Amino acid sequence: MQRILSTQLAEHAHETVTIAGWIHRRRLLKSVAFLIVRDAEGLSQVVVEAPETRAQLEALTEESVVEVTATVTPSEQAPGGIELTGPRIHVLSRVDVPLPFELHRPALSASLPTQLDHAALALRHPRRRLALQVAAAAAAGFRTALTAQRFVEIHTPKIVGSSTESGADVFAIDYFGRPGYLAQSPQFYKQLMVGVFERVFEVGPVFRAEPSDTARHLAQYTSLDAEMGFVADHRDVMATLTSTLRVMMATIAESVGVETPKVPSEIPAVPFAEALRIAGAPAGEGDMTPAYERALGEWARREHDSAFVYVTGYPMRKRPFYTHPDPADPAYSNGFDLLFGGLEIVTGGQRLHRYEDYVTALTAAGEPLEPYAGYLDGFRYGMPPHGGWAIGLERLVTRLLGLANVREVTAFPRDLHRIAP
Amino acid sequence: MQRILSTQLAEHAHETVTIAGWIHRRRLLKSVAFLIVRDAEGLSQVVVEAPETRAQLEALTEESVVEVTATVTPSEQAPGGIELTGPRIHVLSRVDVPLPFELHRPALSASLPTQLDHAALALRHPRRRLALQVAAAAAAGFRTALTAQRFVEIHTPKIVGSSTESGADVFAIDYFGRPGYLAQSPQFYKQLMVGVFERVFEVGPVFRAEPSDTARHLAQYTSLDAEMGFVADHRDVMATLTSTLRVMMATIAESVGVETPKVPSEIPAVPFAEALRIAGAPAGEGDMTPAYERALGEWARREHDSAFVYVTGYPMRKRPFYTHPDPADPAYSNGFDLLFGGLEIVTGGQRLHRYEDYVTALTAAGEPLEPYAGYLDGFRYGMPPHGGWAIGLERLVTRLLGLANVREVTAFPRDLHRIAP
Repeated sequence: MQRILSTQLAEHAHETVTIAGWIHRRRLLKSVAFLIVRDAEGLSQVVVEAPETRAQLEALTEESVVEVTATVTPSEQAPGGIELTGPRIHVLSRVDVPLPFELHRPALSASLPTQLDHAALALRHPRRRLALQVAAAAAAGFRTALTAQRFVEIHTPKIVGSSTESGADVFAIDYFGRPGYLAQSPQFYKQLMVGVFERVFEVGPVFRAEPSDTARHLAQYTSLDAEMGFVADHRDVMATLTSTLRVMMATIAESVGVETPKVPSEIPAVPFAEALRIAGAPAGEGDMTPAYERALGEWARREHDSAFVYVTGYPMRKRPFYTHPDPADPAYSNGFDLLFGGLEIVTGGQRLHRYEDYVTALTAAGEPLEPYAGYLDGFRYGMPPHGGWAIGLERLVTRLLGLANVREVTAFPRDLHRIAP
Repeated sequence: MQRILSTQLAEHAHETVTIAGWIHRRRLLKSVAFLIVRDAEGLSQVVVEAPETRAQLEALTEESVVEVTATVTPSEQAPGGIELTGPRIHVLSRVDVPLPFELHRPALSASLPTQLDHAALALRHPRRRLALQVAAAAAAGFRTALTAQRFVEIHTPKIVGSSTESGADVFAIDYFGRPGYLAQSPQFYKQLMVGVFERVFEVGPVFRAEPSDTARHLAQYTSLDAEMGFVADHRDVMATLTSTLRVMMATIAESVGVETPKVPSEIPAVPFAEALRIAGAPAGEGDMTPAYERALGEWARREHDSAFVYVTGYPMRKRPFYTHPDPADPAYSNGFDLLFGGLEIVTGGQRLHRYEDYVTALTAAGEPLEPYAGYLDGFRYGMPPHGGWAIGLERLVTRLLGLANVREVTAFPRDLHRIAP
């Protein structure tokens, strides 16, 4: 018999149907037993009265996978007004070991490290599932928004020949006996692809060998990258990012049913020095710390009713060499960050687009040109003014769900201490 | 003035507009000069008559980036019936070096290695662009088809702690001073996620350190992975793959305008031994070679008018340990390949789903269990019968466009000899 889902039961009142899923919970009362079966869409309540079926149920344990053929019976007492009666249970996969933690409570009681050690089990909990569904919807919304605006999806190398982008924090690999490195971002490649499609995006893994053991850092995370040509400056990039965020939030709200913050038609944008002042930083402070970011986020919420706030015009010395300076004050950049709830979730900006500007910038930074040869090649052959951004997917989801740690929204996180499962 | 695209010119007849793009070609005739500007959507013809503008054009070279403000003038002689007259040219980015090859001819004359060395330039050629657009459409169709069938997108680790999946052909990395490896596929993770969402997919990079220097192999390629629970056997997986392929082909045809092969409602499926016989293999031949695959592809085209053909029931000894055996003959598997035009583009099958079957399979293979601990954990806690597939995106696009080498459809390929650009 064709299996139906828990959400389809109501359409089959009084019929005999087959459902399948995991034993979410058993309640073995004196006169009757209840079997709660969990499938991808929800829970079903099965009423067990026959002694031989009850004996079978007593010998089973939670998370065993079963197929249940039974009658769909409307019942006022049952959750959702439907229960399954007169069941026959067929075991597809039996669990013979005690579970390290229970899944049927509103929250997982296990510590985060225990959850991560048993990720295959912990991720079955509705709260852990939800975070991954939000991530999937965010990525889908990102692609929808950008595809509608003529962006083309690209796939770029994750293995690169030079550890150019920011020095020390790269993973080294043995590439057929030669040194290779894992890409810290698709930055160089997405810029080159502006020369091909004008507008490109990529959703993919990036790798950071930062020895930072914080609630915000992962050694691998998913980056939602976009890059666009023929911009006047970084404000064109910010406008496109803002409209993209709006579609992402709408997609999350629609497809997962999570409440999402309003994205204002214009997100407040605060120049760097003013951001520091608003955050209460002492005069002469040179960078936005996480504490200042939180303070600025509170200000944006209070003064602009916005969960989002841009910080613009970071000092050039704080930004990578490919950053375009502010033509009005070249000590500052056309680069920006976007904070969400006081957490930096996006970095972006306008980039240099002329070959000679790259040569000047790299030379000023004391960098040799040779490791950048393949990258610079694209700029020799004509590139328009352009810019883009990278959204950290896990940070976005963490903040959206009000969670404390990016590891809570990552299926199988990688960090300083963890490489398994 | 707001820039418009080449495809929007016809809507602006007799108006003054600004276009922007790359100098695709200049034709400097005696009495008049033509400037062909290329943007993301196509070409525009600009007629240059004023002496000072002609002098400016003569000093520019192909691939320089320009903005042109001019009058949209209908003209019977012009390509598309429109040309731009009375232009003012503003240079955004000047090319000062000779190009290594020309872009304006129907085919690139440069050898493939030269194209790959100058990928940022070569990818601007319409044929190279087209392949990447087909890849983008294929991935979009894959996600559309699976999302509509309740599959959830996942992101899995590309760095793993054990080189378990097929031994030698993995890239080793230094993971914070410990050994790590690049994932050869999301196989284990997508299986575990069947326990969470029942149906999952991932579009992402996979890494193979195979020293194979062929036209079919890349050290990094894009894998379109799916995995689904509660299947009867591999035939349920094949049916879902077939319907997914149909959406992929329709998406490519619609969004890129490339002619795609018909996907039959039922793709011919040939058992392994029969496939060898059809391919003309001698009795006792133990595997499908590329030559046999080509012969079988020709047979499917001839006998079934199908560009696609499944080969089913590979011998267990040819498939990885997690493959589910054929219950009727356990020397053979519930695994399949899909050939497209005689090239293997998909591998899939039903997997083992019971913990004890994994222990038996690994023990029989002489493998220790410990490196598989995180993977096996999921099977201890209840997994349904399941199966899935992995499509090699570059192979699919190569075959669809009738090209010879996967490197022709990869923006920045990685192989035995190439790690840049």
